[in-house]
Amino acid sequence: MNKTRLNKVLQAMAEQNVPQMVISDPAAIFYLTGKWIYPGERMLVLYLSLSGNHKLFINELFPLPEDLGVEKVWFNDIEDGVAVLSRYIGKAKTIGIDKNWPAHFLLRLMEQQKDKAFVNGSGILDRLRMYKDEQERNLMREASRINDLAIGQLIQLISPQHSEKKLSHLLGEIYETLDAEGYSFEPIIAYGANAADSHHIPGNSRLKAGDCVLIDIGCRKNSYCSDMTRTVFYKHASDHARKVYNLVVEANQRAIEIIKPGVRFCDIDAAARSCIETAGYGKGFVNRTGHSIGLETHDFGDVSAVNTAPVEAGMIFSIEPSIKIPGELGIRVEDLVLVTADGCEVLNQYPRELMIVE
Amino acid sequence: MNKTRLNKVLQAMAEQNVPQMVISDPAAIFYLTGKWIYPGERMLVLYLSLSGNHKLFINELFPLPEDLGVEKVWFNDIEDGVAVLSRYIGKAKTIGIDKNWPAHFLLRLMEQQKDKAFVNGSGILDRLRMYKDEQERNLMREASRINDLAIGQLIQLISPQHSEKKLSHLLGEIYETLDAEGYSFEPIIAYGANAADSHHIPGNSRLKAGDCVLIDIGCRKNSYCSDMTRTVFYKHASDHARKVYNLVVEANQRAIEIIKPGVRFCDIDAAARSCIETAGYGKGFVNRTGHSIGLETHDFGDVSAVNTAPVEAGMIFSIEPSIKIPGELGIRVEDLVLVTADGCEVLNQYPRELMIVE
Repeated sequence: MNKTRLNKVLQAMAEQNVPQMVISDPAAIFYLTGKWIYPGERMLVLYLSLSGNHKLFINELFPLPEDLGVEKVWFNDIEDGVAVLSRYIGKAKTIGIDKNWPAHFLLRLMEQQKDKAFVNGSGILDRLRMYKDEQERNLMREASRINDLAIGQLIQLISPQHSEKKLSHLLGEIYETLDAEGYSFEPIIAYGANAADSHHIPGNSRLKAGDCVLIDIGCRKNSYCSDMTRTVFYKHASDHARKVYNLVVEANQRAIEIIKPGVRFCDIDAAARSCIETAGYGKGFVNRTGHSIGLETHDFGDVSAVNTAPVEAGMIFSIEPSIKIPGELGIRVEDLVLVTADGCEVLNQYPRELMIVE
Repeated sequence: MNKTRLNKVLQAMAEQNVPQMVISDPAAIFYLTGKWIYPGERMLVLYLSLSGNHKLFINELFPLPEDLGVEKVWFNDIEDGVAVLSRYIGKAKTIGIDKNWPAHFLLRLMEQQKDKAFVNGSGILDRLRMYKDEQERNLMREASRINDLAIGQLIQLISPQHSEKKLSHLLGEIYETLDAEGYSFEPIIAYGANAADSHHIPGNSRLKAGDCVLIDIGCRKNSYCSDMTRTVFYKHASDHARKVYNLVVEANQRAIEIIKPGVRFCDIDAAARSCIETAGYGKGFVNRTGHSIGLETHDFGDVSAVNTAPVEAGMIFSIEPSIKIPGELGIRVEDLVLVTADGCEVLNQYPRELMIVE
């Protein structure tokens, strides 16, 4: 285990009166142990305790190197993993539970530990993970550098011959050439009105002149994620599309301009949102302005109206205002930013000017 | 909503004293509504109630067609989705919870509904989904027919020039050509000793003469999943490898032979397991013999020593005995079977004889 990180977790547990924690998020387990384990539907739990009785509960199906620095407790497919875990739970009343632990594990543990108080304990690790140390910052820069190169290559390939789905396959090959580990999330590539669907899955649509091409992509490199969006136009862009595009870029810039330590996430959201609302397009901007990113594309910590926490140096998150006009188009321009001592460093360099591809 | 399926769910809820249910599994929601919605980290809940007050709670980010047959309750990123849901929860004491609902939603709902009893309600839908109706059986046959074709084409491409990772990319192209919707799970392609890791991720290993090549693959077609494994050998197979291979095929056949309505899942597991244990390789067979499959690759219902339920006509599951010998090889032979009135239909036709590729 990474002792520096573990000690910070234990200190936060003590401060927040969470004497023991059930951690199941593979990214959190990687953060502490340096090893990715994907258990699928099987139970995987890193149990941390202020008494020092840390254990990794893991199905025999997952062979592990011996050097994780935490004692392993094995079980197999015909054993009740939660019952095995329950035998090691300490006497302290409160148990912090991973926010994404599947309900059936939690309900089963509640049956076996009836006198305990269960709380969402993920905030402890999630908040620590929001601050990137110097090594993590460099890894994030590198993942975004590759993403900038990839989007440049991909935009060159836009053609009426390629469906959205085909472009997303070509992106996979580009990432491979650039030595990334793969997508950090399934790419969103959307033509024309498809771009008004925030979670469009690339399909067989073909490009028509005047379509916008929304490209929301990210790769993983050395376990860290990138995530950026550019929207370009095929052949030409209508006056209305240009107006909407420039407004989104302006919102992106307004948000980025105000970022520095102490500014609240909600202030950053408001900077982007007020720009779009003032222009009368508020109804088309339904998503939050951004999200934290690191070992996962969507890490804890939204840039949204309800997050009143201040940002601090070392945090990395996305700035991605958008305007969707159903049946017509969707525009999004997204960059990652790293908060610095007196402002922020934008991790994406790819141009934001309106671009027409032929 | 599919009225036939909905009525079966409501009937089972009444029988099992679960008057209301929180369903979050995208496959379960597809099963009832015919629409896939992938909410990522956002809340998505289909709430069913014996009082008939069904609702779909969904973030505004996900545009939906209007014809789902269930009233929608929208919320956005700055609202507390669970609080919105909580306002609609009925007076009945018990709430069935989806087995995979993330813990933070459940803990939040428990805070807001302190007098309620929360139970894992997934068994109701999961058990119904184990029986495939005639239409589903045909869709499952079709997905496996494509998988048989795909593995045949992939085995032709085995070559020392291709890494495991490259082969898995080529499989993606094969599925595309065969008009499948993509992988039903990330393919496992493992050379030599890598095959002893149940969850090996295809990497840059290159083939050596004498290596086994384990190929565990599946596609989605019309939303239904296939899943099969074959293990072949490159250039030659040692006597020991041949012995292990033939034993695994024998275990696969022993299990398939006894399948008919009324036989228990654990009996099927025992048939495969005893065959391998008797030959002295029990320690190498750590996984369950199989799993149910349908809208998800791993549906509810394991073929394992602890599942004492009887199989019934219309159920579809995998039979996949394996032997792993760390540092040497891993052999798995996996077929899908459909339980019929008096036996079973094997959905995979690709040969099981020991195959050496050059």
